[in-house]
Amino acid sequence: MRQPTIRDVAERAGVSKSLVSLVLRGSDQVRPEKRDAVLRAAQELGYRPNAAARSLSEQRTRTVGVLLNDLRNPWFVDLLDGLNSLLHANGLHMLLADARLNRRTGQDPADPLLDLRVDGLVVVGTLPDPAALGAVAERIPVVLAGSREPAPPGVDVVAGDDERGARLVTEHLIGLGHRRIAHIAGYGAVGELRRGSFEAAMRRHGLAERAVVEPSDMTEEGGYRTTVRLLSGPERPTAVFAVNDMAAIGVLSAAEELGLRVPRDLSVVGYDNTSIARLRHVWLTTVDNTSHEVGRRAARCLLERFEGPGGAGRTQLATPTLEIRGSTAAAP
Amino acid sequence: MRQPTIRDVAERAGVSKSLVSLVLRGSDQVRPEKRDAVLRAAQELGYRPNAAARSLSEQRTRTVGVLLNDLRNPWFVDLLDGLNSLLHANGLHMLLADARLNRRTGQDPADPLLDLRVDGLVVVGTLPDPAALGAVAERIPVVLAGSREPAPPGVDVVAGDDERGARLVTEHLIGLGHRRIAHIAGYGAVGELRRGSFEAAMRRHGLAERAVVEPSDMTEEGGYRTTVRLLSGPERPTAVFAVNDMAAIGVLSAAEELGLRVPRDLSVVGYDNTSIARLRHVWLTTVDNTSHEVGRRAARCLLERFEGPGGAGRTQLATPTLEIRGSTAAAP
Repeated sequence: MRQPTIRDVAERAGVSKSLVSLVLRGSDQVRPEKRDAVLRAAQELGYRPNAAARSLSEQRTRTVGVLLNDLRNPWFVDLLDGLNSLLHANGLHMLLADARLNRRTGQDPADPLLDLRVDGLVVVGTLPDPAALGAVAERIPVVLAGSREPAPPGVDVVAGDDERGARLVTEHLIGLGHRRIAHIAGYGAVGELRRGSFEAAMRRHGLAERAVVEPSDMTEEGGYRTTVRLLSGPERPTAVFAVNDMAAIGVLSAAEELGLRVPRDLSVVGYDNTSIARLRHVWLTTVDNTSHEVGRRAARCLLERFEGPGGAGRTQLATPTLEIRGSTAAAP
Repeated sequence: MRQPTIRDVAERAGVSKSLVSLVLRGSDQVRPEKRDAVLRAAQELGYRPNAAARSLSEQRTRTVGVLLNDLRNPWFVDLLDGLNSLLHANGLHMLLADARLNRRTGQDPADPLLDLRVDGLVVVGTLPDPAALGAVAERIPVVLAGSREPAPPGVDVVAGDDERGARLVTEHLIGLGHRRIAHIAGYGAVGELRRGSFEAAMRRHGLAERAVVEPSDMTEEGGYRTTVRLLSGPERPTAVFAVNDMAAIGVLSAAEELGLRVPRDLSVVGYDNTSIARLRHVWLTTVDNTSHEVGRRAARCLLERFEGPGGAGRTQLATPTLEIRGSTAAAP
């Protein structure tokens, strides 16, 4: 049986050969319908690109390791989808490890992946130990996806533009007439960029003195505790912008417990557009990080480094959008 | 980007290749100075014994593959915790693969794990293709965890006792005075066992005629759609028992949309005690599957099969408990 070629894929998808090759290289210049048609045709035909065979020597495992920071926060699900679609189209498998579980048992989180000699590593989310990744990056391509952490040399970073996202949220709330706005902050690069941008937007609107910032551990429990304190004090804020959806769920719970109706008495915004924010019962206004796109771009960075290793690390930012749902309304 | 080899380690340590390999196999026939020199050189070079090569001699990668059915439903998180704790205590690593992602790209879901020659496989959740697992189980130990699917020969099953869990739910609702009770059912072994047990409990209490069963796809969306239909008809049920927490969240949304207050007008129960059910904003009465215990028992099954392979597959059931929270109350 003849192996399917790029020409077969093009024919089946009803596009040109050069468009197929653009898609397989992960180009942005292709319309989503065309891209989907090509990836579907490649899959249906069982097409395996020559590029993958060329770039991967016989010692390679054809497997990319993905290190997840914490499986309990589901923000990474769309990112994995995007990553997997492009890796698979290039003949690569994907395996996952949960950094939180590995840390709990005292392992170096990436070890199980490295021991099996993955060809490349994608670190999804906040970085546990940047120095350790430097040593890994000297041997295999490493990409940080979804969080703009300081990266070791030679490591690419693909993340959402957190400053832009936080500005969208703050201006949405100000536009609704809110003046006293609280931010439940987080940690790491994600926490700092979102907080800094919230404060800058408040300053630009002459509201620096009405801004309240409270730290949190980015969990539901943390968002809940911080909000109970915030809402019980004098000069209650009319809107709360939480650093992520998990903390925002905690804000919703605190509001409910204190007898405040969302969004009538209190507007609440999250960040990440997780599956939880999309639940009808929650229906949270939040920032969509275009995680599927972040995942695809991270895959492209890896593929490029397989083709031509070395070179300085680059940072790419995807443009987030605001998803306005049921948890925000005009200030009371 | 070349990975360091055993030859590089030997050169750096100033010893022979065979001495390096003796040290790496933990031989005590090597003088301590030599052993230290070899281990230091291996560490400085970032050398990792080639898992594939090692598995040819030792037949071990010391890695267990975990195949997850769908990362979007977080019920498996505690199970992984329990699994990991015991595997790690025995010097084994754990790697994950997402069956849904692999299926979407047309791969056999377990392939990426098997290609890297994991020592054992744990399948978490509903089984995609039991026949395929039979072939795997002839080569390495396989355990099904969290779902009582029909298992191929030689495969152990560790799951929660779904019949007992569904009975606890049904009797809780009947005890609260509910008579017309609906069950949003699911599929697979999990779906059938829970439905069958609900129907049996209703029959035992002479309520067979008041029981309503509606199928669903076990998602939030499915739970929502089914409930909108259920609650809009005549003879509305006063309680809904959903096959899992995700579908129960859909029930909550439907109730809210139809202007029914939970639990005053409608009691709702889920199953799995996921992190979502525990959110204060949701606070769902649900069944706790003791998933951590299921994970630990699955690890023990694997470890026993590593020690003494072969033998018939066994089924173990963990005893679930009912978590009574804010979504159930006396019938109106």
